[in-house]
Amino acid sequence: MSNIFGKDFKIMCFGESHGRCIGVVIDGCPAGLKLAEKDIQEELDKRKPGQSRIASQRKEEDEVEIISGVFRGFTTGAPICLLVFNKDVKSESYEKFKDLLRPGHADFTSFIKYGGFNDYRGGGRFSGRITAGFVMAGAVAKKLLNLLKIEILAHTVEIGGIKAKKLSIDEIRKNIYKNEVRCADLGAAKKMIEAIERARKEGDSLGGIIEGIVLNAPIGLGEPVFDTLDGEISKALFSIPGVKGVEFGSGFSGAELMGSQNNDLFLIKRGKITTKTNNAGGILGGLSNGMPLVVRVAIKPTPSIAKSQMTVNIKKMKQEELKVVGRHDPCIAPRAVPVVEAMLAITICDFVIRARFIPRALK
Amino acid sequence: MSNIFGKDFKIMCFGESHGRCIGVVIDGCPAGLKLAEKDIQEELDKRKPGQSRIASQRKEEDEVEIISGVFRGFTTGAPICLLVFNKDVKSESYEKFKDLLRPGHADFTSFIKYGGFNDYRGGGRFSGRITAGFVMAGAVAKKLLNLLKIEILAHTVEIGGIKAKKLSIDEIRKNIYKNEVRCADLGAAKKMIEAIERARKEGDSLGGIIEGIVLNAPIGLGEPVFDTLDGEISKALFSIPGVKGVEFGSGFSGAELMGSQNNDLFLIKRGKITTKTNNAGGILGGLSNGMPLVVRVAIKPTPSIAKSQMTVNIKKMKQEELKVVGRHDPCIAPRAVPVVEAMLAITICDFVIRARFIPRALK
Amino acid sequence: MSNIFGKDFKIMCFGESHGRCIGVVIDGCPAGLKLAEKDIQEELDKRKPGQSRIASQRKEEDEVEIISGVFRGFTTGAPICLLVFNKDVKSESYEKFKDLLRPGHADFTSFIKYGGFNDYRGGGRFSGRITAGFVMAGAVAKKLLNLLKIEILAHTVEIGGIKAKKLSIDEIRKNIYKNEVRCADLGAAKKMIEAIERARKEGDSLGGIIEGIVLNAPIGLGEPVFDTLDGEISKALFSIPGVKGVEFGSGFSGAELMGSQNNDLFLIKRGKITTKTNNAGGILGGLSNGMPLVVRVAIKPTPSIAKSQMTVNIKKMKQEELKVVGRHDPCIAPRAVPVVEAMLAITICDFVIRARFIPRALK
Amino acid sequence: MSNIFGKDFKIMCFGESHGRCIGVVIDGCPAGLKLAEKDIQEELDKRKPGQSRIASQRKEEDEVEIISGVFRGFTTGAPICLLVFNKDVKSESYEKFKDLLRPGHADFTSFIKYGGFNDYRGGGRFSGRITAGFVMAGAVAKKLLNLLKIEILAHTVEIGGIKAKKLSIDEIRKNIYKNEVRCADLGAAKKMIEAIERARKEGDSLGGIIEGIVLNAPIGLGEPVFDTLDGEISKALFSIPGVKGVEFGSGFSGAELMGSQNNDLFLIKRGKITTKTNNAGGILGGLSNGMPLVVRVAIKPTPSIAKSQMTVNIKKMKQEELKVVGRHDPCIAPRAVPVVEAMLAITICDFVIRARFIPRALK
Repeated sequence: MSNIFGKDFKIMCFGESHGRCIGVVIDGCPAGLKLAEKDIQEELDKRKPGQSRIASQRKEEDEVEIISGVFRGFTTGAPICLLVFNKDVKSESYEKFKDLLRPGHADFTSFIKYGGFNDYRGGGRFSGRITAGFVMAGAVAKKLLNLLKIEILAHTVEIGGIKAKKLSIDEIRKNIYKNEVRCADLGAAKKMIEAIERARKEGDSLGGIIEGIVLNAPIGLGEPVFDTLDGEISKALFSIPGVKGVEFGSGFSGAELMGSQNNDLFLIKRGKITTKTNNAGGILGGLSNGMPLVVRVAIKPTPSIAKSQMTVNIKKMKQEELKVVGRHDPCIAPRAVPVVEAMLAITICDFVIRARFIPRALK
Repeated sequence: MSNIFGKDFKIMCFGESHGRCIGVVIDGCPAGLKLAEKDIQEELDKRKPGQSRIASQRKEEDEVEIISGVFRGFTTGAPICLLVFNKDVKSESYEKFKDLLRPGHADFTSFIKYGGFNDYRGGGRFSGRITAGFVMAGAVAKKLLNLLKIEILAHTVEIGGIKAKKLSIDEIRKNIYKNEVRCADLGAAKKMIEAIERARKEGDSLGGIIEGIVLNAPIGLGEPVFDTLDGEISKALFSIPGVKGVEFGSGFSGAELMGSQNNDLFLIKRGKITTKTNNAGGILGGLSNGMPLVVRVAIKPTPSIAKSQMTVNIKKMKQEELKVVGRHDPCIAPRAVPVVEAMLAITICDFVIRARFIPRALK
Repeated sequence: MSNIFGKDFKIMCFGESHGRCIGVVIDGCPAGLKLAEKDIQEELDKRKPGQSRIASQRKEEDEVEIISGVFRGFTTGAPICLLVFNKDVKSESYEKFKDLLRPGHADFTSFIKYGGFNDYRGGGRFSGRITAGFVMAGAVAKKLLNLLKIEILAHTVEIGGIKAKKLSIDEIRKNIYKNEVRCADLGAAKKMIEAIERARKEGDSLGGIIEGIVLNAPIGLGEPVFDTLDGEISKALFSIPGVKGVEFGSGFSGAELMGSQNNDLFLIKRGKITTKTNNAGGILGGLSNGMPLVVRVAIKPTPSIAKSQMTVNIKKMKQEELKVVGRHDPCIAPRAVPVVEAMLAITICDFVIRARFIPRALK
Repeated sequence: MSNIFGKDFKIMCFGESHGRCIGVVIDGCPAGLKLAEKDIQEELDKRKPGQSRIASQRKEEDEVEIISGVFRGFTTGAPICLLVFNKDVKSESYEKFKDLLRPGHADFTSFIKYGGFNDYRGGGRFSGRITAGFVMAGAVAKKLLNLLKIEILAHTVEIGGIKAKKLSIDEIRKNIYKNEVRCADLGAAKKMIEAIERARKEGDSLGGIIEGIVLNAPIGLGEPVFDTLDGEISKALFSIPGVKGVEFGSGFSGAELMGSQNNDLFLIKRGKITTKTNNAGGILGGLSNGMPLVVRVAIKPTPSIAKSQMTVNIKKMKQEELKVVGRHDPCIAPRAVPVVEAMLAITICDFVIRARFIPRALK
């Protein structure tokens, strides 16, 4: 396994879904950042399940503890360890079907990779629960970026084929957390919620698309040719369970345009160079270009469904039927929204430090 | 800049479009691999321009030289340096418009990032030409994978909105290099070629989608939670100039399916566990699952177009008109096909070594 | 800061002397290793202070907790987080002289580096206490090496100028933990203890030299030219507070020999290639050569002394007198013995995994 | 193998003693540094053999070529590839004794590690010749450090037991290159030269000790707890063939002092905090403290000697006699002086960039 991400702002994640805790250590956070548990708790609360009818009924009363790296309210430069202890864990249900490979899950691949020693309860280290660690680290990254006025947003733009209409940044920012699906188009949000409830009743699930946005990033973030801004962001996003696609700007649809349509023309606006359109999604040559960074992430439908599915019992090596019982989100996209935000914040923060745009206050 | 990729099979690329050479050093290739210039030349020839009417008219007579790491026909375990010296370079045309920011190119971002010291001729280090280095390293990776019977394929599945129909692996393998667009659907290929010629005549360009396939990879490649197989592959692919999106298996379209449709059911077939469908694209939980790995890559339309475009003169800080003259591919997707193959081969090879599936012959 | 060590068997350390805890996360430990708290506790107990009159009177009742990565008594392949919570911490004494730079300590450099935000209590992240984290990780490494029959030893060979006589491996192994100074030459040990007690009475301190030994390492560990076995070991050892020199085999004294004296002649013994002498200390060309690896580490005298010293008050920027009160070891060498063992075990373990000599049982 | 060193100022070395070339690629050098072949040639000339009677008679007319990363006399931010092609290579002599393991060399360990595929001619990748790559990269590092007024010096302080007397920095700087042994104490230098000539006549060789000095480094270089300044420097120095020990400041002799003797008292001098003595060798807690950094390096006697030695024929697995013929330095310490300088410069440069003390001119 490799549970370290980042080069200068490094995070190391650990913990399992049904183990004692979920944790993260941040190495490379500059000294002098004001940091308290509540800064992290706020972000953590955004990904909390059990917030509504459409999410998992599991109650994760995640309470963060800072156990190193902060002294008298400020970061010291030493590694910051953040922990949440697991509560409300029901592992019994996993014992029954522990030999049955859940379709769409890592049960099979992790069994082979780790010789059957992996913690299978709730997916263990492959559970969506591990993203609590991402969100805690992201909260610290966001605080740092905040000093540079860099803003990170994410919102749901599609669920079960229902698409949100294009909105302005201001509308998005205002509306994201106004509904359970984190969709800024309130009309679409309503339909998405209905679709999710319908899927739940059918014992089925839905996928979706999340859009992440970075505003006010300095020009030149990224380290081509291999540690490109888009490359590192996509790598970060693929670590979120369920992500199957990542595109920037016009992305896959841009591949159908002509060069004269897809090129963003350069302009001078208020003495600054900018582009007329933003089909590049804010990235040119693997470097940020000063325009909003726009990335879209495809989230597959939750693989845990109540419907009966054919699968394999790996111990008996024979086919058996499986009905996944348990408390699952019929659509994980809404809960992935703060996680996309977190991974974006962590990646941008790492590049900001690599490129030495450190908040002056912290130098 | 960061020009190193890989953790165990590491490559370090260097060189510029109009500089003296393009080169790559491979560190971590096991000793004992039979390797000759011709092994690399074959792959390099696949990305050579000037092969047809639809490609750039620039003649790159790329001839590879192995200048270290090979002794009496076999790799020694020492770093392998591969070089091609640049020929047929015409830099004069770049002098004229060197202060004009070419839309869709890295001219602006690299100027800012490197304080105007970057080599602007032909895009310098940001040119598509640097992928010659990727292809050379990929040739070595492919030879290694070959010993393990792992096969890497790539083919064009869409250009300018024209989609290839779904074909079997055998048909793909057989047809890829039968036409200039590297599209295995020969009927679609014909239409693609026509579309490219039309675009060229109009002084415009087209984008496309390439599909990469990895066959026979062992189960368990990948190092979650951060160095996932999909994450590292996507990072590798985003280092190819022009790539704007990456998706695995059902990807973005899977986000519109229901869980019961998208889940790949597990089966036992000839005593082995496999899946009925392959919506996962061969990856579960960031690990290869034994099914074909399928990845699709969106390539934007070539930004260099003959049509007049409004842009900015960065020295004078005023808007000017630009007509990019020079020898450019009206669609780079076909030439990106061997590059996608190369980056896939390099990434898989790195994971194969990390996971210790080293060809026995080389241990 | 950079608190990550290792490439395949990676450790990330955190925690402060007077903070809530000392911890370490191990990433890359193979799945299937039997591991319980007591395995780690045993090693941890070796570095415990308060064991004797000659050590610090601080009582560190270090009790390790495994909070991730182990499931039903075996490692799972997931990151292993090990924690000890700090007890018996008296921070008041540090408040009084917090602006006085303790000579020989990191107070000055860390104040400058971290802008005064560093946790100064007991040296914070620069305290010898952080080596509890090293020892916990080392305990896991030792268990792994044990499966390969690789043995790690360390013992005190000099304190305050008193040198132990050369002993056989068997004598060393038998005697190390028979006395408080971890010196296998029991006569010398007695004199060392007397010298330390004398130094303590005078309010002064002593330094020493520790020898580390690795037995039965496979031939070829190390990754030249930069990640050499000696280079990585020395880097690991310099992370132990107080280390000022590292030498292998004949080391500095070998520089005074002639080539014909220092060269180790190759022999065949019981069908195996070996060397007549071991001036190389088991390393040739940065690679293990099958002979015992022998490294010596110079430990400076404890900088915390009761004697009055002239120093600087960094807030007032004036010179003041300082008498370090508190509970300090008059010689840290004996307590550094298990730490040298730990860092050796961690480094060797990392190379064993890099070179793929993984215990078969765990593959 | 692992031929990459550094984290922000990265070098990747390649090439073999009797292959086509020795080369290095530097990744991470800031854009805007004036750089020409002659800057590198000057440093390279310092390690050239054949300069005197006491060195190897092999004539290495090393002529550096910059083949990437420099445009119109300035670095561009892109990777810089530096090459010297090998001339005057006589490989025949190696064929005769290629199966005989030369004592003190890497022949045995590299044969085992690389399965007999290693290039044995002149030691291949394990030859001292590879340090030409270190010196080329060091020349670039020195130019960068020069902009910050950081100075790197190295000089011989002992050869064959003959010790130079302690001299001032000014005397050292003035005298280093005044004699063939690079010893600033001219009286001792004369005796060293005589000792080397004596050893050569006897078909034997001598070792020595080199002292490296870094002046004017900013306070706070280093990234504890693992990437300490001393740890990284020692790792860098152990990559030089023949190095068997590294110590800082009072080093091994400091281990015999009392704390009150070894502690460097803090003082205020001209408004700045400094220390009365420099037993720490300029490093406290793994961080530079503003005093001169002083490191001593033990170089073993050249293993290639003309005297007959017993060894093993690895193909026949029997003992045979070996007389190494060829052109070897009877003492490599003098030629290692510029290499120690280079590795110090590279390591300091890497930390300078990590700590963001980038020359303002280049930002």
